Amino acid sequence: MTKMKAAVAHVFRAPLVIEDVDVPVPGPGELLVKIEATGVCHTDLHAVDGDWPVKPVLPLIPGHEGVGYVAAVGPGVFGIREGDAVGIPWLHDACGVCEYCQTGWETLCERQHNSGYSVNGTYAEYAIASAPFVGHLPPNPDFAALAPILCAGVTTYKGLKETEARPGEWVAISGIGGLGHVAVQYAKAMGLHVAALDVSSEKLDLAGELGADLVVNCAEEGAAEAVIRATGGGAHGVLVTAVSPAAFSQAIACARRRGTIALVGLPPGDFPTPIFDVVLKRITVRGSIVGTRRDLAEALAFAAEGKVRTTVFEEPLEAVNDVFDRLRQGRVEGRVVLRP
Amino acid sequence: MTKMKAAVAHVFRAPLVIEDVDVPVPGPGELLVKIEATGVCHTDLHAVDGDWPVKPVLPLIPGHEGVGYVAAVGPGVFGIREGDAVGIPWLHDACGVCEYCQTGWETLCERQHNSGYSVNGTYAEYAIASAPFVGHLPPNPDFAALAPILCAGVTTYKGLKETEARPGEWVAISGIGGLGHVAVQYAKAMGLHVAALDVSSEKLDLAGELGADLVVNCAEEGAAEAVIRATGGGAHGVLVTAVSPAAFSQAIACARRRGTIALVGLPPGDFPTPIFDVVLKRITVRGSIVGTRRDLAEALAFAAEGKVRTTVFEEPLEAVNDVFDRLRQGRVEGRVVLRP
Amino acid sequence: MTKMKAAVAHVFRAPLVIEDVDVPVPGPGELLVKIEATGVCHTDLHAVDGDWPVKPVLPLIPGHEGVGYVAAVGPGVFGIREGDAVGIPWLHDACGVCEYCQTGWETLCERQHNSGYSVNGTYAEYAIASAPFVGHLPPNPDFAALAPILCAGVTTYKGLKETEARPGEWVAISGIGGLGHVAVQYAKAMGLHVAALDVSSEKLDLAGELGADLVVNCAEEGAAEAVIRATGGGAHGVLVTAVSPAAFSQAIACARRRGTIALVGLPPGDFPTPIFDVVLKRITVRGSIVGTRRDLAEALAFAAEGKVRTTVFEEPLEAVNDVFDRLRQGRVEGRVVLRP
Amino acid sequence: MTKMKAAVAHVFRAPLVIEDVDVPVPGPGELLVKIEATGVCHTDLHAVDGDWPVKPVLPLIPGHEGVGYVAAVGPGVFGIREGDAVGIPWLHDACGVCEYCQTGWETLCERQHNSGYSVNGTYAEYAIASAPFVGHLPPNPDFAALAPILCAGVTTYKGLKETEARPGEWVAISGIGGLGHVAVQYAKAMGLHVAALDVSSEKLDLAGELGADLVVNCAEEGAAEAVIRATGGGAHGVLVTAVSPAAFSQAIACARRRGTIALVGLPPGDFPTPIFDVVLKRITVRGSIVGTRRDLAEALAFAAEGKVRTTVFEEPLEAVNDVFDRLRQGRVEGRVVLRP
Repeated sequence: MTKMKAAVAHVFRAPLVIEDVDVPVPGPGELLVKIEATGVCHTDLHAVDGDWPVKPVLPLIPGHEGVGYVAAVGPGVFGIREGDAVGIPWLHDACGVCEYCQTGWETLCERQHNSGYSVNGTYAEYAIASAPFVGHLPPNPDFAALAPILCAGVTTYKGLKETEARPGEWVAISGIGGLGHVAVQYAKAMGLHVAALDVSSEKLDLAGELGADLVVNCAEEGAAEAVIRATGGGAHGVLVTAVSPAAFSQAIACARRRGTIALVGLPPGDFPTPIFDVVLKRITVRGSIVGTRRDLAEALAFAAEGKVRTTVFEEPLEAVNDVFDRLRQGRVEGRVVLRP
Repeated sequence: MTKMKAAVAHVFRAPLVIEDVDVPVPGPGELLVKIEATGVCHTDLHAVDGDWPVKPVLPLIPGHEGVGYVAAVGPGVFGIREGDAVGIPWLHDACGVCEYCQTGWETLCERQHNSGYSVNGTYAEYAIASAPFVGHLPPNPDFAALAPILCAGVTTYKGLKETEARPGEWVAISGIGGLGHVAVQYAKAMGLHVAALDVSSEKLDLAGELGADLVVNCAEEGAAEAVIRATGGGAHGVLVTAVSPAAFSQAIACARRRGTIALVGLPPGDFPTPIFDVVLKRITVRGSIVGTRRDLAEALAFAAEGKVRTTVFEEPLEAVNDVFDRLRQGRVEGRVVLRP
Repeated sequence: MTKMKAAVAHVFRAPLVIEDVDVPVPGPGELLVKIEATGVCHTDLHAVDGDWPVKPVLPLIPGHEGVGYVAAVGPGVFGIREGDAVGIPWLHDACGVCEYCQTGWETLCERQHNSGYSVNGTYAEYAIASAPFVGHLPPNPDFAALAPILCAGVTTYKGLKETEARPGEWVAISGIGGLGHVAVQYAKAMGLHVAALDVSSEKLDLAGELGADLVVNCAEEGAAEAVIRATGGGAHGVLVTAVSPAAFSQAIACARRRGTIALVGLPPGDFPTPIFDVVLKRITVRGSIVGTRRDLAEALAFAAEGKVRTTVFEEPLEAVNDVFDRLRQGRVEGRVVLRP
Repeated sequence: MTKMKAAVAHVFRAPLVIEDVDVPVPGPGELLVKIEATGVCHTDLHAVDGDWPVKPVLPLIPGHEGVGYVAAVGPGVFGIREGDAVGIPWLHDACGVCEYCQTGWETLCERQHNSGYSVNGTYAEYAIASAPFVGHLPPNPDFAALAPILCAGVTTYKGLKETEARPGEWVAISGIGGLGHVAVQYAKAMGLHVAALDVSSEKLDLAGELGADLVVNCAEEGAAEAVIRATGGGAHGVLVTAVSPAAFSQAIACARRRGTIALVGLPPGDFPTPIFDVVLKRITVRGSIVGTRRDLAEALAFAAEGKVRTTVFEEPLEAVNDVFDRLRQGRVEGRVVLRP
C-alpha cells in the first residue's frame, strides 16, 4: 500500500508528528483527494488540545480547509471525476435523512462527522472526502487562496446571511482577524454597508482598504455611540467573529432596534445578555455554525469571481507546529495555508 | 368641568390615592373612553414603584388594559364614533413616520407614549386614547374578559409569533401565570403542540385543562430532558413569560436545534447565555415587547371567537392598593380586572 | 424467483392487466415494501393514458400512494428495519446533491424519479422504495386511511403552506373533491379560517361538516363577493385544487390584497392572468407540486393525530380498471384505495 | 392669492393647457413644495387619456415624480421645515389605520390618494404634499437626477425586492427602457447578477455599460435558453418592466425552478399563464405596485450614494405636450424631466 506524509496528533497538547501513513482508500460514495493546500483554523487547535466536551479519538490527522484534485473515486459516486478540483470542509458528511438534512440544515445533523475531528482531515498529502459534501472549485483554481473559504469564508458568509441584513443596510463586523477581514469583503459584495470594529488600528486600516464604510476602534470610548450615530440608529446586523463577553456586550449596544446579532465563534462559558435592552429593542441573538453545502457553494462563487480574497501565508506542512504556536500567541494575520 | 374618579400615584412606592380629577378633553385625533374595566399588570407596579431607568412623571394615573365605550371624539378622527367599544393598550401612540412606524413595528418607535406611564392611563372612569391606536372590540363585549387581552393577551400572542413555530410544531411555554395561561390557549388556537412548564402542580393542572399536550414540573430533575423526549428533539419555539436566570437556562435546554426562544418579561439584570450551545444548535434568542396594532387586532379576534379566555377576578377600582399588594406577594391567579 | 400480482399498463389508454410478475429485489439504499393499500390518484390516469409531454416507458406498474410493511432491506440502508410501516410517495427518489436537494426542495430535482411513472409503482403486492424517501407511518397504522396522505394529503398540506396564510387568517379552498375535502381539514388543524367553494351542495355540506367556516356555491352569482364580505376584504390565501380557467379567475377575485393563490393541479393549457388586478393588489400566484419529505412527515403527523381523515372506499386490486372508469367519469367521492 | 404656472388637463386625450392657477394652501399635515423638477411617466399618459377603469376628475394637474424645496408648512406637521428638499411620489397619502397601513403596506390602502391622478400633481411651480408621505432628499440635491427615483426608481427597486433574489443570485430584467435601465443599477448595487433582455441592441449596450453581466436580445431565437445556460438553470428572479404577453411568456421561460417573476407594468388585459410549468417548477408570479415610504427611502439612499443614476433629459414645463407625443411614440430614451 502506498504511503503518504501526514501531520498526526497522538497526544492532546503535544506537537503533531510528521510521519508516513497509508494512503486511505475511498469507500462507497467517497473520494480520495490529493491535497494541494489546507488552511489552519483555530478549531484545529481546539481539536489537538482536546478543549471541547466531546474530544476526538487519537491518533488524528487534523485539518478541514483542504483543497486539491480528486485522485480516486469510490464506488457509487456520480457526477464527480478524477481531476476535478474540490475542497473538504468541516462538515465531512451528514446522515441525509434527519429533519435537518431534509431541510437544508445538514450542519445541525446530530450524526454528522467533522473533518479533522471525528474523522481524519486534510493535514496530509491525501484525504478522504464524502462526495456529496465536497465544495466544487473552478478549474485550475488558486488553491491557496481558496482553502480558507472552506471554513473561514463560509462561516462568515453564513453568519452575515443569518443577520438578515439586506442590501443597503448596515452590518457591524466585530473583530477584523482571519474571519473578520473575509467578512468585510462578503458584506460589501452583498451590497451592505460595513462598520468594522477592532482594537488594532492596523486591522482597521485593512478593513478600510477592503471597503469598510466606517472603522471604529472599540478600545476607545464611545465606540457603540459612533456606530449608532453613523448608521442613523445602529447596525441592522452585527457579526461577532471573536466572541468575548466584551465584544458581545458591544454588539448588543451597536445593534439597531429589531437588529440581529450573529455569533460565529465557539469560546467556552456564558455571556451576559441584558434582558431589558433585548426585549425593549426586540434584539435577536443567534448562533451560527459554519455553513451548509449550499452556503459553501455560494461562498466559493463569490471568491471565484474575485470579490473575496483572503490574505494567506503559505508554509510547508512540516511547519505546522510552528504555525500552531504563532496562532496560540495571536501572531497570525489573515490565514496560514499549509502546502503538503 | 366635570369630575371623575381616578386612582392616582403621587409618590413612588406609596399607595395610590382614589380621588376626583377633571375629566380630560380629547384633542385632535383623540378619543375620550368611558372605562368599563381595566386589567392590573405587573408593569403598573413597576410604574408606581419607579423601578425602571426612565421613570414616569408624577402625579400619574396608571393602567394600560382599559376597555370601554367611546364617550367623545376629538377633531380629525375618522371611522370611530361615540358608543364604539374600544380598548386602550400600553402603546398609547407613536410618531407614525419613523422607520419602525412605517414598517409595522410601531412598538419600537422611539417617540412612543405609553398608557399609564408617560401619559395618564385607565385606572379611572374616563381615559384619553389616541384614535389610531385603540383596539376595536366587538359590539356588546364582555369587557372584563377582554381587558387583559390588551396587554397580557397581545404580549403572549406576539411572543408566540416571534418564536416562528408553525402549526404542528411544538412550543414550550415557561411559566403558567397571568401571561402563560393565556399563551397556552393562543398556542393551541394557532395549531401548535404545547409543553407547559411551571413549578406549581395547580398551574400545570390548569395548563392541562386549557389543552397543553405535555405538562412538566420544572422543579423536578430532568425537566428539559422530558421536553426533549416528548417532542422528539426539543421545542421548536420557547416562550419565556417569567424571565428568570433559571427559566432562561431551562428555555435554552428545551429548545430544538434551530429553535427560537422569545422573552416577554422585563426583569432587571443580565442572564447568562451559553455560547457553545447557542452556536452549535443555531439557537435564536429574541426579545419581544407587547405587540403592534395589527397583533392586537389579531389577538382580539381570537378572543372574540372564544378561543382564548382569561381567568379574571373583578374588583372595584377602590381595591387597587390591595390588589397591588397581592400582586407583589405573587398571590394573584390569572388576572385582576378593576371596575371603575 | 417469487412471483407477485400486479396491475400493469402495456399500452397507453388500454385497460391495465392483472398479472403475475417477479417480486423485485431491493438494491443498495432500497426497500421492498409489502403493499397493504394504495390510493388511486388522477395522476395515475394521466400516466396510463400518456397525457403529458414526457411519457412513461411501458410496461409500467402505476401507483404512488402505496403503504405497507418493509419486507426486505437492501444493502446500505440504516435506520429502517423489516416490519416498519412505510409509504411510497410520488417522489420515488432524487439526486441528493443538486441545489434543490441541498436546500430541502427535492421536489424540484431535475433527476428525480416518480413512483408509478418513471419507475414501477405500488399497484402490486410488493414495490421497491428508496429508503431515504419513504414516509414513516406509526406502528399498526390504518393503512387504507393513510394511503391518500402520501399524495392527496401532502399535496394539499404543502399547497396550504405555500399560501403563507397564518393562523387566524382566511384561506379559500376551491374544489371540495378528493383533494379539497382533505385540505379543509388541514386548514382547520393549522388554525386557519376556511371558506369552501364548490358547485355541488353535497360537497359544500361535507365541507361544513369538516369545519369550514363559510361555504359558497360558486355556481351562483356573487360568489367572490360573498367571500370578500365574510372575510372582511378577501381570503389571505387561496388553494385551487381543481385548476380550471373559471376556478382560477374566481381565485384571483376572492383574494385579499397581498394574498397568495396556490395552484396544485396539473391541467394542460394556459390560464388568463388579469395583470391590472395582480399588480394593483400585489397578488401572488404560485404553483405547488406534491411536497418534500419533510412536508410528508408533517402531513402524516397531522393524520396520525386524527386531525385529518380522508374519506376512502376500499376495492380489490383487480377492480382497478373499473375504478379508473369511475374516476374518468367524475363519479368518485373522496378517494378509492386498492387492496392488493 | 398668488398665482403659479401649471400644466392642466381639461379634457381626456386633449393637450394639456399651460395656465396660471392659484397657488394651493397647505392644510393640516400638508406641505407646499416649490417644484424644481418633475419626471414624466407613462402613468401620466394613462391619467390624461382616461385609460383606466377609475378615471381622474378633470381639470387635473398631472405629475407624481416632483422634487423641490418645502415652501410652506401646514399646521400639525412635525420634523419637516421650510427649505427641506423633498419629493412627491405617486402615493400622495393613505389612511394610516387600515391593515395595510398598519403593516407597512400602505401602497395597498384602499383609501389612498395618488398624486396627479386623484389629487393634483407636480406639473406646476408648486404642489401640495402630505407630510408623512414625502420622500426626503439630501441637502442640495441634483433635483433632475433624483426626480425619476420617486416613481421609476422606487418601482424597480421594490420589484427587485419582490423577486426575493439574494446577493450572488441572478435576476433577469426584461425591458431596458426608462424603468429597466434603472433596475439594472439597483440590481448591481444589491449584489445581484444581472441578465438584461431587450430587443434593441442600443439598449442592451447601455445595460452592459451599467454593469449587466449578460445581455440577451430577445428578438433572436433561443433567448430564454441563453439565460438558462448562462445562469446555470435560469434566473432566480425576473423583473418584467414592460409587461406584454410575449415578455411575460419569456419571463416564465427564463425563470429558475422556484424562481419569482415580478410584474411592474399596468397594461390592460390578461396574460396567459402556463399552469404546467408554473406548478412543476414552483414558479411564483407576483404583481408589484410602486413602493412604500420605506422602499422609497431606501431607493433614494442608493441614488444619493451615486449607485443609481437615471439618464434624464431636461425640458421646460411648456414642452410637456411634445414630450407626451414622443412618449406615445416610444421615442424617449431614459427619462424626461420637466423644469417648471
